[in-house]
Amino acid sequence: MRKIIVQKFGGTSVADTEKIKNAARTVIREKENGNDVVVVVSAMGHTTDHLVKMAKDLNKTPSAREMDMLLSTGEGISIALLAMAIQAEGYDAISFNAPQIGIMTEKIHSKARIIDIKTDKLRAKLKEGKIIVVAGFQGVTEDGEITTLGRGGSDTSAVALAAALNAERCDIYTDVEGVYTTDPRVVNKASKLDEISYEEMLELAHAGANVLHPRSVETAKQFNVPLRVRSSFKLDDLGTLILGVEKMEIYKPVAGVAADLSQARIVVCDIPDKPGVAAKIFSHLAKQQISVDMIIQSYARKISNTNDIAFTIDASDLDKTIKTLEGLKDEIQAGDIKIDEDIAKVSIVGAGMIDRPGIASTMFETLAQQGVNIRMISTSEIKISCLVDKENAKKAVQALHKVFELEGDSIAEVKGTLPEEEGC
Amino acid sequence: MRKIIVQKFGGTSVADTEKIKNAARTVIREKENGNDVVVVVSAMGHTTDHLVKMAKDLNKTPSAREMDMLLSTGEGISIALLAMAIQAEGYDAISFNAPQIGIMTEKIHSKARIIDIKTDKLRAKLKEGKIIVVAGFQGVTEDGEITTLGRGGSDTSAVALAAALNAERCDIYTDVEGVYTTDPRVVNKASKLDEISYEEMLELAHAGANVLHPRSVETAKQFNVPLRVRSSFKLDDLGTLILGVEKMEIYKPVAGVAADLSQARIVVCDIPDKPGVAAKIFSHLAKQQISVDMIIQSYARKISNTNDIAFTIDASDLDKTIKTLEGLKDEIQAGDIKIDEDIAKVSIVGAGMIDRPGIASTMFETLAQQGVNIRMISTSEIKISCLVDKENAKKAVQALHKVFELEGDSIAEVKGTLPEEEGC
Repeated sequence: MRKIIVQKFGGTSVADTEKIKNAARTVIREKENGNDVVVVVSAMGHTTDHLVKMAKDLNKTPSAREMDMLLSTGEGISIALLAMAIQAEGYDAISFNAPQIGIMTEKIHSKARIIDIKTDKLRAKLKEGKIIVVAGFQGVTEDGEITTLGRGGSDTSAVALAAALNAERCDIYTDVEGVYTTDPRVVNKASKLDEISYEEMLELAHAGANVLHPRSVETAKQFNVPLRVRSSFKLDDLGTLILGVEKMEIYKPVAGVAADLSQARIVVCDIPDKPGVAAKIFSHLAKQQISVDMIIQSYARKISNTNDIAFTIDASDLDKTIKTLEGLKDEIQAGDIKIDEDIAKVSIVGAGMIDRPGIASTMFETLAQQGVNIRMISTSEIKISCLVDKENAKKAVQALHKVFELEGDSIAEVKGTLPEEEGC
Repeated sequence: MRKIIVQKFGGTSVADTEKIKNAARTVIREKENGNDVVVVVSAMGHTTDHLVKMAKDLNKTPSAREMDMLLSTGEGISIALLAMAIQAEGYDAISFNAPQIGIMTEKIHSKARIIDIKTDKLRAKLKEGKIIVVAGFQGVTEDGEITTLGRGGSDTSAVALAAALNAERCDIYTDVEGVYTTDPRVVNKASKLDEISYEEMLELAHAGANVLHPRSVETAKQFNVPLRVRSSFKLDDLGTLILGVEKMEIYKPVAGVAADLSQARIVVCDIPDKPGVAAKIFSHLAKQQISVDMIIQSYARKISNTNDIAFTIDASDLDKTIKTLEGLKDEIQAGDIKIDEDIAKVSIVGAGMIDRPGIASTMFETLAQQGVNIRMISTSEIKISCLVDKENAKKAVQALHKVFELEGDSIAEVKGTLPEEEGC
């Protein structure tokens, strides 16, 4: 039986007709390798921005349902154009939007989750020898309402399709060349990883590496779909393969270093040391859809019988957080609420740290040698994060990248801008 | 029971966000009149041109199926934006594309005909008090393929919806103020008609008045849907109402005068006078999708036992026609093939000419008085067309407009450009 490869092209990879032609050639190359190909496409370059601008012109708070109707047209354009470009090269291609094949989602607009993907039509068309071009980012509910999947949506569409079709691999074509040991703009000897595990990628993604949305990696992990992140414009470069740890041949204790500069730290001081106070704080924050990352509760002070709770949030949630805490302050008898935005979370990630002791101490020692004060620490099985002053973030990343032997032989090619998440 | 009004806004009436806001206000005005409103929208202004240009960049002969997938996104954008604009004014609106409500068509791409429109969802949403915004121009086949309706498609969508919903009226909002007795650029005393019958409108449309596509008028006639053509920008002007003759209060013998400058005349000379030759010529032309308009066959010449066949075609079919005739020439033993592009078809149209004799002779006399030579004549129940030299067209229209008393009291407002058919 022929193998199925799912390919995904993000917005920058189909930004204009020249780039669509390039994508068509990439698709055909995979077909010529003897594989069946299903291609998932995002909206062209700035289409989404343009549509959002018109919507805001007409309605400051457009309904989520109509926004989904509007934004889904972006992928409608790119799938038809890519199918035409493939046909121009003499190959048989057919485009489908999400309702046509049945990418079924929950009935939630603007951030629906995929429930099921019907594969009958896809398999029938593949059997006819057709290359299939599918609209990413969009879905449909049982009663025919159009939904969108939110941030990272097209990556998630591609991975979910690969899972549903039991595909050999899902290739995410993008404008970066793969996953790096750290941000090449911070460490010029950052090296591209040939392989990384889902777990490591997830921790790196959460830690601020913007190559793939965590959601798509989680889906890939759940269904064990090998995921390759690679450049749309350097086809001979295989990029980075993301797969299960059990399939990886070798791995270093630390796979990558990441810095997240988008957090803010809150300290709620002098809280009575009695049960339920922390629960109250975090349940109120959760109700406001505020995600809390690191949390530290100090030991209770003997004399006052109070303690402090410190935690980090995304800086964009700062206003909402302060408002929520001010509303709770009297009820929980808290003292001052302190805010610190000049912080950075520096993380090392590696599946190899599970069975190798001493990684944490190496991290702390390295930071100490650099005179970097650690404000908070949090750990998971495969990640250690330290909160440091923002001004120390670069120095910290550089030192950790070096001490964990992540430097490549060749200097990584540094792009002018951060590798941003593509399209939708 | 509340009455249903179907409104249709063409591409120029939703060309930008300001115009969409204007359309929203027009919709709300009708809702405030106490009616249920279903709005059909074309793609915004030049969206279709832009999409076609990208398609041609990628593929010189894009497949009709993918063109339909591509072009249908244009209406997808405008329905969502119009729904948002209506919502911004505090009214409940919901947009639907053709597959969502079930505008079922034949399985033919780029010029499908509507077979059926499901109304369950529409009626349910109207009952909830919602204003419904529907994508014009598009349809869906039984097996979920997206189709488009071709030229005049959105007008046809609107009329078909009005018929399916048993609507009170279908209002076509456009950038002209109604149907005129003739082209205001030719005769400056052309007057706007308050009423015109379907039959007259059809003959005028075919005769070169580009306000409505004949197909939408035919559909309106078939289902007896009153059709109003009116300006998007002058809401107090009721435009022209198109309806069944039986419903019209009064009508003049001649409702309008039209000139069609886009035809060419072909004469196939010296054809043997035997049965089947004409049939052969016209069946071969039909196979090439060439529409023939006027046809005249001369009496057979006694001595040579041959005759001539003259007919008119659309000038854009000229090359195809010559090629077809050259291929037939030997087989049918024809002589020369003569071509004349400097011709114009001048027509008078009026349901009133059925029971009033003498209209034709008045037409011929009027042209003779102007020194205009008539090259061919064709007639229907409510139309008389004369083929004249192109240079005489204007003079002929002006004289006919005057003799049949079509001049308005006020001079019609002349637009800079011909009233072209809008969008798709």
